[in-house]
Amino acid sequence: MKAIVHEGKNGLAGLAYKEMTTAKPKANEVRVQLKAAGMNHRDLFVLERHSSSEPPLIIGSDGAGIIEAVGDDVKDLQIGDEVIINPGLGWDENTPAPPDHFEILGLPDHGTFAEYITIAAKNVFKKPKHLQFIEAGVLPLAALTAYRALFTRGNIQANQTLLLPGIGGGVATFILQFAKAIGATVYVTSRSAEKRQAALSLGADRAIDSNADWSQALNNEKVDLVIESVGAATFDQSLAQLRKGGTIVAFGSSTGDTIQLNLRDFFYEQYNFLGSTMGSAEEFQEMLDFIDTHQIKPIIDEVYPLSEFHDAFLKLQNAKQFGKIAFQID
Amino acid sequence: MKAIVHEGKNGLAGLAYKEMTTAKPKANEVRVQLKAAGMNHRDLFVLERHSSSEPPLIIGSDGAGIIEAVGDDVKDLQIGDEVIINPGLGWDENTPAPPDHFEILGLPDHGTFAEYITIAAKNVFKKPKHLQFIEAGVLPLAALTAYRALFTRGNIQANQTLLLPGIGGGVATFILQFAKAIGATVYVTSRSAEKRQAALSLGADRAIDSNADWSQALNNEKVDLVIESVGAATFDQSLAQLRKGGTIVAFGSSTGDTIQLNLRDFFYEQYNFLGSTMGSAEEFQEMLDFIDTHQIKPIIDEVYPLSEFHDAFLKLQNAKQFGKIAFQID
Repeated sequence: MKAIVHEGKNGLAGLAYKEMTTAKPKANEVRVQLKAAGMNHRDLFVLERHSSSEPPLIIGSDGAGIIEAVGDDVKDLQIGDEVIINPGLGWDENTPAPPDHFEILGLPDHGTFAEYITIAAKNVFKKPKHLQFIEAGVLPLAALTAYRALFTRGNIQANQTLLLPGIGGGVATFILQFAKAIGATVYVTSRSAEKRQAALSLGADRAIDSNADWSQALNNEKVDLVIESVGAATFDQSLAQLRKGGTIVAFGSSTGDTIQLNLRDFFYEQYNFLGSTMGSAEEFQEMLDFIDTHQIKPIIDEVYPLSEFHDAFLKLQNAKQFGKIAFQID
Repeated sequence: MKAIVHEGKNGLAGLAYKEMTTAKPKANEVRVQLKAAGMNHRDLFVLERHSSSEPPLIIGSDGAGIIEAVGDDVKDLQIGDEVIINPGLGWDENTPAPPDHFEILGLPDHGTFAEYITIAAKNVFKKPKHLQFIEAGVLPLAALTAYRALFTRGNIQANQTLLLPGIGGGVATFILQFAKAIGATVYVTSRSAEKRQAALSLGADRAIDSNADWSQALNNEKVDLVIESVGAATFDQSLAQLRKGGTIVAFGSSTGDTIQLNLRDFFYEQYNFLGSTMGSAEEFQEMLDFIDTHQIKPIIDEVYPLSEFHDAFLKLQNAKQFGKIAFQID
């Protein structure tokens, strides 16, 4: 089969679209013929983390397709089932944090940027019926991360207001869709006028230019919840918009990791600051149910064939997308 | 009546033990003959915050005594009742943060370092029967702060482990007693060998020299909960001891307010960082019930008459105490 493989040099220079062998499913495993896959920022990190001294690695965390082989002891799944893959390996039940042996599909295990994947049956879920394969293929990692950050951690309620700095990436776009689906008020920020417009079209109640004075843009209205993934560049501004007793959830830090906090302000305001990343298999099922209930469809920025991986990676690297970048796999 | 009054110069130099008038209780107020009062760090802050251009102020937040006059419309309280005072003004029900008009007794309202206080009846609670006046008098602010930080915010469970940096102050000492009362494991730190020994006598499972390597002292065991009040000097070390998905509650920052955080570590570890200060009237009643159920008695470091306020303030300023500093009022 053909796959996008990382070997040798770090970064994009180490990627190739080449022939790899497929594995026969063992007990409690299935083999899925992939119809679509989705890109995540993690795919870029993996190109740096996967060592040139290790065997070639099929990258990719997100995928959807059709079961075409079933190992022994597999229940509830059969050949021909249309499925979506949970990329979280080893985090089954809702717990405050993943177990020590938790991994994400695509490093160290072979991932989804391939014609086939052989994977534990418990990571394979029925595809929501209202989604095309290309839509299901971009869902897993980002929608799971969004679900946990917004609901499990942020505990957002319909009558609350959410501030979402840096709209555009896959997770933030899902958070906007999920929050609007339950009727919350959502304010977003972006440096890009196009992304602000796209967010308003998706239902954002206000879209603020990142370079503007946020307090002024919000008429000094404080928010109940902030979900932060921009990091050092916006964290101070984000915290300044939070009401007393409000919550800030962080799941990313794309502009830098180091922030300063004033402890006295923090405890007088009785803030809650919660870290979040990925989610459990239980949350993956809850997320699929939520998507189904609200008939949510992912926003797809652009679709590439696997063979044009180089262009797709450049687009991801330049953060020009609004929503998800997909691979169609024939 | 006699009272400790701040006027004129900032700091200790502006304090005097002098004659003040008492107020007659209006509707929904009572007058309490104070038998004991307790000192808090807040009393030192008040000496800086109370402006020399304002009228003389009776300071003090903690007190206990006997009702000796009752205003109109007061229910459930009568002359002769032995009572303890909740110093939180305007925060009645449990909410994520106090209302905007929340104040603490002793600034701007006259406080408890006096022979009498006239105060809203809803701030006056029946004294737990197992406590002497001197014990009840030191309880309110610190035990309320401890209760909210440990239970409402920290949500400690019997099978969990708590790290408590900087044992010795009133709040930390109550936290140690409360956590041991429910059967939790408690590790404390202090620079003072005497305070470490005192903490062990109070039930601490381990007492670590603040200057030691904490990880090593704990054999690399991570904890479920940290309650921080030391601030800049210990925050990094405190966070480093926390297990994945663990919680750090901050209610103070005695060594400095500014801390740095690594966002990536924070969200990968799925930490919870919660600010806490004081508590509601509902929590005050819960705290009294808890004290009663577990027959907890405050640790009193030293007792002074009101007239020796100067020595008492110096002791508090030098942070030499273990537990609470009290005023006996005759």
